[in-house]
Formats: sequence, C-alpha cells, structure tokens
Amino acid sequence: MDFVGSHIISVDQFDREAADRVFAVADRMRPYANRQRITRVLQGAILSNMFFEPSTRTRVSFGSAFNLLGGEVRETSEVKASSLTKGESLYDTARVLSGYSDIIVMRHPESGSVAEFAEASRVPVINGGDGPNEHPSQALLDLYTMRTEMAAQARTLDGMTIALVGDLRYGRAVHSLCKLLCLYDQVKLHLIAPPELSIPEEIEKKLVADGHQVETFIDMAKGISDVDIIYVTRTQEERFPSPEDADRYKGLFRLNQTIYTQNCAPNTVIMHPLPRDSREQAQELDDDLNQNPNLAIFRQTDNGMLVRMALFALVLDVVDEVDNHAQPVTWFTSKRLPDSPPQ
Amino acid sequence: MDFVGSHIISVDQFDREAADRVFAVADRMRPYANRQRITRVLQGAILSNMFFEPSTRTRVSFGSAFNLLGGEVRETSEVKASSLTKGESLYDTARVLSGYSDIIVMRHPESGSVAEFAEASRVPVINGGDGPNEHPSQALLDLYTMRTEMAAQARTLDGMTIALVGDLRYGRAVHSLCKLLCLYDQVKLHLIAPPELSIPEEIEKKLVADGHQVETFIDMAKGISDVDIIYVTRTQEERFPSPEDADRYKGLFRLNQTIYTQNCAPNTVIMHPLPRDSREQAQELDDDLNQNPNLAIFRQTDNGMLVRMALFALVLDVVDEVDNHAQPVTWFTSKRLPDSPPQ
Amino acid sequence: MDFVGSHIISVDQFDREAADRVFAVADRMRPYANRQRITRVLQGAILSNMFFEPSTRTRVSFGSAFNLLGGEVRETSEVKASSLTKGESLYDTARVLSGYSDIIVMRHPESGSVAEFAEASRVPVINGGDGPNEHPSQALLDLYTMRTEMAAQARTLDGMTIALVGDLRYGRAVHSLCKLLCLYDQVKLHLIAPPELSIPEEIEKKLVADGHQVETFIDMAKGISDVDIIYVTRTQEERFPSPEDADRYKGLFRLNQTIYTQNCAPNTVIMHPLPRDSREQAQELDDDLNQNPNLAIFRQTDNGMLVRMALFALVLDVVDEVDNHAQPVTWFTSKRLPDSPPQ
Repeated sequence: MDFVGSHIISVDQFDREAADRVFAVADRMRPYANRQRITRVLQGAILSNMFFEPSTRTRVSFGSAFNLLGGEVRETSEVKASSLTKGESLYDTARVLSGYSDIIVMRHPESGSVAEFAEASRVPVINGGDGPNEHPSQALLDLYTMRTEMAAQARTLDGMTIALVGDLRYGRAVHSLCKLLCLYDQVKLHLIAPPELSIPEEIEKKLVADGHQVETFIDMAKGISDVDIIYVTRTQEERFPSPEDADRYKGLFRLNQTIYTQNCAPNTVIMHPLPRDSREQAQELDDDLNQNPNLAIFRQTDNGMLVRMALFALVLDVVDEVDNHAQPVTWFTSKRLPDSPPQ
Repeated sequence: MDFVGSHIISVDQFDREAADRVFAVADRMRPYANRQRITRVLQGAILSNMFFEPSTRTRVSFGSAFNLLGGEVRETSEVKASSLTKGESLYDTARVLSGYSDIIVMRHPESGSVAEFAEASRVPVINGGDGPNEHPSQALLDLYTMRTEMAAQARTLDGMTIALVGDLRYGRAVHSLCKLLCLYDQVKLHLIAPPELSIPEEIEKKLVADGHQVETFIDMAKGISDVDIIYVTRTQEERFPSPEDADRYKGLFRLNQTIYTQNCAPNTVIMHPLPRDSREQAQELDDDLNQNPNLAIFRQTDNGMLVRMALFALVLDVVDEVDNHAQPVTWFTSKRLPDSPPQ
Repeated sequence: MDFVGSHIISVDQFDREAADRVFAVADRMRPYANRQRITRVLQGAILSNMFFEPSTRTRVSFGSAFNLLGGEVRETSEVKASSLTKGESLYDTARVLSGYSDIIVMRHPESGSVAEFAEASRVPVINGGDGPNEHPSQALLDLYTMRTEMAAQARTLDGMTIALVGDLRYGRAVHSLCKLLCLYDQVKLHLIAPPELSIPEEIEKKLVADGHQVETFIDMAKGISDVDIIYVTRTQEERFPSPEDADRYKGLFRLNQTIYTQNCAPNTVIMHPLPRDSREQAQELDDDLNQNPNLAIFRQTDNGMLVRMALFALVLDVVDEVDNHAQPVTWFTSKRLPDSPPQ
C-alpha cells in the first residue's frame, strides 16, 4: 500500500505490512504526543475536519493530532449546518471542500458516503466513521494497543487469544478489528454475545477461512477465562430499531474487579472502544476496574493520537521530516505521563 | 475606496477601480491557494468568524482563507449559542467581540444587522451575508470568475452577454452581482425567470440607467442561446412564505448537456453560486454537465478562496508583505490541481 | 498558591497575594491584547476549550486569549455532541480529553462537575463556569476591573464602596466576587435586591465576619448614591423555576443616565458581567449610558482577555518567557484602542 496522497477509507486497504508501517510510525510520534518535544512539520497545512454526525471525542482527537504536527484545523460538527440539507450531492460537497484544505477527515451517518465523497475530492480523505460501516482509525488504534500491550508482556499479536464481549452485531469497531486481526497468525477469538447480537456470519467465516480459531460463548465468565485480552463493547443503541430494543441488552454482560479476579489469568488486558456506558443499567465495565493496571481503555485513546498522527504523516508524506522540525517544549507539561502497560 | 481598516459591508462600496484592485490581489493569492508555497504574513492575527446562521461552506472558506495567510481563527456557528438570545444588542456584541480579534467576519439572518454591528466594532468587519440583503464576497467571487473565464477566451467583462436563470427575486447573489456588473461597460443581460420571481424593478432600472441592455425571457432555451455566461440560481426556499410555495418553482428551469449542446454557443460558461440542488425535483444543473469543461461552478468556489484572501490582505494592509513571508510547501500536495477554464 | 500545573476551579483557592499575582501578570499582557506586539510563547501548545453549555462570549474569550499567547485551540460547544449523553462518566471524559491537549477550559451546567472532571485530568483544568456554582475567571476580571478603575482615580480596592444591584440570589458572578472582595480591607457593600432575590445568608455572614460593612436596600436610588462602583446584574432566568417567575423581576431596577446624574457621585463606575439584557422589559442598564465614560462594562470584557492570558501563562509557567517570544505586529491594527478609565 502506498500511503502518499491516498484516501484511508476502509481497513480492507491494509495488509500486514501496511498495518505494521502505521504502527512503526505511531511509535515515532510518542515523544510529540507526550509533550517531550513539539514539531512544526505541517506548519501552513490545513485539515478540514468535517463531522456531519456528532462525535466530540473523535473530532477533537483528529484535530489535536493535526495540531501536534503543526497544522491548522477548520471544522464543522453538525449535519444541519451543512449544504447537504439543501440537496447538495456528496460530489459537489467534495469538489468544494477539497479546494479549502490539504486533507479532509469526514464522518457521516451513511454507509459508503465517505468513499463516494473521496472519489470527487482533490485532496486525501480519511474516513472518520461512515455510519454502521467503517471507522478504520479506531480499528488501527485498537490493534496498535493490542500490539503494545502484548509487547509489554514480551508477546506479539500472533497467537493471541481475545474475548470480544457485547453487541457484536452492530459494533462496527469489532467488525473492522476482526478484519485487521485476520492479517496476523493463529489468533483465537472468544465471541461472547447474546444470540440476537452475534457477529455477522461473513466475518466469522472469514476469520475461520484465514486460519483463526473462533469459539462462541453465552456465559461471559467462561469466555473470559484464559484469554490475553478482553475487548468489551457498548450496545450500539443508535443502530437498533428503537431505544427500548437496545435497552433489553444493556447490562447483560458486566465486568467488574471481582469477576475479573475470579475468572481471568493475571495481566489479562481489558479494552473498550469508548465511550463506556457508566449508567446503572449498563456498566459494561465497572468503575471498580479503574485502579486495575490492566485496564487499557485510556491507553487506547492515548494511542489514538499516535495512530492518527501516523496516518496524517504517512498520507502527507512527512514521516521522515517530523524530527527535522522538532523543537523543545518550554511550558509546563504534566508530571502525570500517560499510563504504561504493566510489564 | 481605501481598503485599509475598512468594513466590507456592501457591494455599493465598490467602484470599478476597487473591484479591479480586489481581483488583482486575488490573482497574486493563487500560488498560496494552490499550495505551491505558503505564507505566514498574518502569523499571530486572529479572525473571529461569527456565523449566527449556519453556512458550513462560507464559514470554512473564510476560515481557510485566513489560515492560508498564516492567521488563527476563532468561530461560532450557531445563533442559539449566542448572547443575542439573551437580549443582548448588536452594539454590545460588537463592542465585546471586537476586543477578541483583529478582524471579524459576520453572518446574521437579519438585513442590515452586519452594518449595525460594524458601526460599534473597533476592528474591521466583513459581511458574510446578512439575510436577504448582501453577501459581497460572493458577488466579488462571481465577478472575478466571469473575469477569469472571459480572460481565457481573450475577452473582458465589458460587452459580455450573461443569462441569469431562476429565482431572480429572492437571490441576493444575483442582486449584488447586478450591482457590480453596472461598474462595467455595455453588459447585456438575459433575465430568465417565472414572472413571480422576476428581478426587483429597482435593479433592472439601475442596469438600464447605467447603459446596459436588459431582455426578459420565460423560455430558457431562447434566453441561453448566444450568451457568454449562464448564471443559474437555486430557489431560495428560506425566503418564501412556505416550503410549498418554493416547491412550485423547483425544477422549472433545468439545464443539462443536451439542452446546452442544442442551444448554446461553444464555450458558453456555466456558473452557479452553489449549493446546487441535486434532488430530483430541482436539478437546476444536471449532473451530466459535470464533465463539461465550461462548467465553472467549482472554479467559482476555488476563486472564493482567492477573493477572500485578497479582502483580508487589503483590509489588514499586508498585500505587499505576503510574498515576503513565503515559504516552500514540504508536504504532499495533490496532483489534481484546480480546473482551469478552457482556452 | 502555586499556580504552575494547578487546576483553577474556585475563587476559594485565591488569597490576596494570589489574586494580586494574577493582576500583575494581567497588566503585562496588555501590549499583546492591544496588538502593540505579538508573542509566540505557547507555539505548539493546545487548549481544549470544552463548552458543554453554550457561551459564545466566554468560549471565544478563552480561545482568543490562548491564541494571543501563540497556542492552538480545539473546542466543542455543545452538550449534545458529547459522549456525556451516551452515559460516559466525567472521570472517563477527563481521562480521554486530557490526552489531547496541554490544558483544558471546561464549562458544564452542573455544580461541581468541573472539580470532579479536574480530579481525573492529567492536565490543568480551568473552570469556565459550572452551572450556578463558580466562574472564577469572571470574578477575577471583575475585581481586576475594579482595581484598574480605582487606580485611575488614585484609589485602591481597600476601603471601596460598591453597590450590587439585581438578582443577588442566583448570580454566581456576584457570589464569587464577594468572596474575592473579602480578601481586601474594609469594603462597604450596598446590596440592592428584591427580598426574594437577596444574597445568600452565608455570603453576607462571611463579609461581615471578615470585617466588611454590609447594608441592604430596596430602593435603588438610595443604594447607589455615594458609592464608588455600581455592579448591576441580569436576572438569571435559567436558574428560576420558570421563565414567568424570572419575568417578574425583570426591569425592577433600571439604571439610566438621568438616574445616574441625579443620584451618583461624579466618576461612579458602572459595571455589569454581561450580557446586559437590552429588551424593553429588562434594560437593567439603559443604552443612554453608552456615552458615559464611567460605563466600564466593555473595559470589563477587554480585561477578561488579560486575566485569561494571565491564568494560562501562570498555570503553564511561561510568565517570564512571554516577552522573550515577542514579535512586532506587521498588519493594520485598529486606531480605536480600547477605552481607558477616566482619570
């Protein structure tokens, strides 16, 4: 895969070499994200951060990643503020917006919209989530986190056992992650979901066809014992026919410290694409796990910065220039560095 | 007209010399907008991009134009987020906001609001659209596009024939454009509109009084033959008493490739202030025109960047400093340069 | 108080020395806010300007203050765009967002929310208003304004007489201001409010316990004679059980030029935390005061920039670096400098 000038629309674009390239560049972004130094490599470049569906977290993450490389960010955060509501085609929107910036991140509620948009764009487009379809930077940061967590235990992604817990039917994060996992060797997957929310058949088939082992569980306690990583997801209520339909599945699987201690191997990593639902009826990951050093959910979001910086640097072809534009940080930086995975 | 420190509120402020000055400066902005180089001339300056009515396109265009000159942008995109809803006067809002920035772009749904705001502002204000009244940067970019399209055919604005098509009653873009056209010599205008949506009488009178030729058409095919430029507009549904009233006029005039080929002289330029309505009931400009090299609608929006950069540079008095703060672009820039008009 | 790396959550954190330190640094920010020069001291730093409740004015003020120091701003302006609506805890939001930036300003509708958020944040957090509770930068800019207005009359804050007018029950600005006033010596306060909207008892008690003089008035004309400063507030309708409840108190106290001339000592300063309600039924400060040189309301908001720049510089430990990164301003700057207090 040649990153330079490419659109990043789907995890299907990535082979193992491409994913590993992203991760290697992400590693090199760490001193900038940790404020040990700054870089001005993209000074003068403009990102159009177009969110036609609300998502504070992802929007700010992409925007900050671009700022960390020295670039400027223009953005929108609402579909109703857009010409799309006046009957403008994605083709027109793309032709117009691509005259305003050097690169575009786009989130949009409709499947396939970002690919259609990218086709008409003169500048590279990164998919920030197109409805139930794809959110490739999330899948990449999840896999990057698995890689760094395993590395701290002197392991690699090959041969890992991962439990996927929750709404495996509607969770696009899980679907994209499974596709990326297929790039590695002999992954074992424990799929823990109510039958109505089980993973789409074609994804399970692909995993098996690619030589991975898939086992299905209804009992969470059984499914999470003897795994390396537990990846918990929220119920994707926005994809259900009605909120009441979604409510039936909230709180079905709850992981807390007691259940963890009773069932999990030491150092079992806990992940979640966030936001986790902390309301009483949900609590898929109990707050009492917050002190558990294996809770990697905030390392995931921190890693999101590294992966998004890496994608920008690769697509805009400045990977080898980043360090040449480095400068020292002269203001107060937090004494509290991001968590590291336990060794 | 002295641009330095001035408010840009209305096309009425412009004489021919002033318009030509904007266009000459816009020409000089092209290498920056095309990413052949960057400039940091406004490093440290702040634009307050205050949109009290949604408009993603215009807001991002002004913001990017300021970023391209090296400045920072603070913005708002919603009236409900504003103190205006708590009974604050425009006077107060202006006094407050003008302490936060070096220049303000303001869009507001009420006619005359931006002028009232500007009167109390300590810093220059550019009208980004005040309801049905004025949107001077749109009119300037339209005229600038006409000028560059004609120049590619070794013509000038003087003596042009232009067909204006659609909702000529409510379209402020058309009204402002006509006022600017009055600055040039012997323009011929074909006004194509249903009688209920014909151009306001005072505008037609002014055109005639200034020595231009005005002809009215109900049949589009007749009106667009033998013209240099066809300028199509959308039905301004937000100005109609009800959406149903507006719907009656949608789709009344549709230009497509077949009609174009049958009726138009070669190289007749097609323009539209955008967004064009691509819904089936409207389609004022059919998608099959997208491959027509005379479709200038995306050159228009690209030119918008140049014209807005020019206005900022003129008002903030940095025109002759822009090139002194130029730097090379070191990241990937698109191989797909903006369209050029056919020669 | 050690500012470096601290959260700024409440005026209770400030002793007299700390407040005076903020004011001394604010004084040094004036040439940058007045565009006599720029500074790049925070180039590469990122502010997350998180407004989970709308407030154009305060949001833009914080953002511009950070830009004036050379930093970048990422922001959100709406609760509905946020994961908070998906059941995410403030703990999670803080852990996530603090990985995106160097400092966070947060506004949130719930009392205590910003303190809870700050506890989980890895980077310093400044309270931009947590519902009815605190808005420390507003109180600091109010006190800073009193100090500069009094200084122009060769006076100090010690021994001042201040009339507080309006909704003293729900106005958090007034409450925080009173707490700060307690740091100074022998302040005299005239409290002018309808009995139902009188100041909370604990605040009045604290003022008296700290040696200040408090007098209560129902008649505004009496309360504002023979004072140094009149501080008028709006009815905080969002805190009332219903808009109708609030409406009963609008327009109860109206200050205009005639009343001012008839009752006030010369050079009595008029302040208001803004926005002032200029609708007919309210008009707590009549527009005919706009030409009164003692109307300090716009000097207040201008001072807000200085105070917010000072807080950023103190917390991020760059106070003594600001001038080292100074550069000349090369663009047009307004001939209309901010008002100065009459001498």
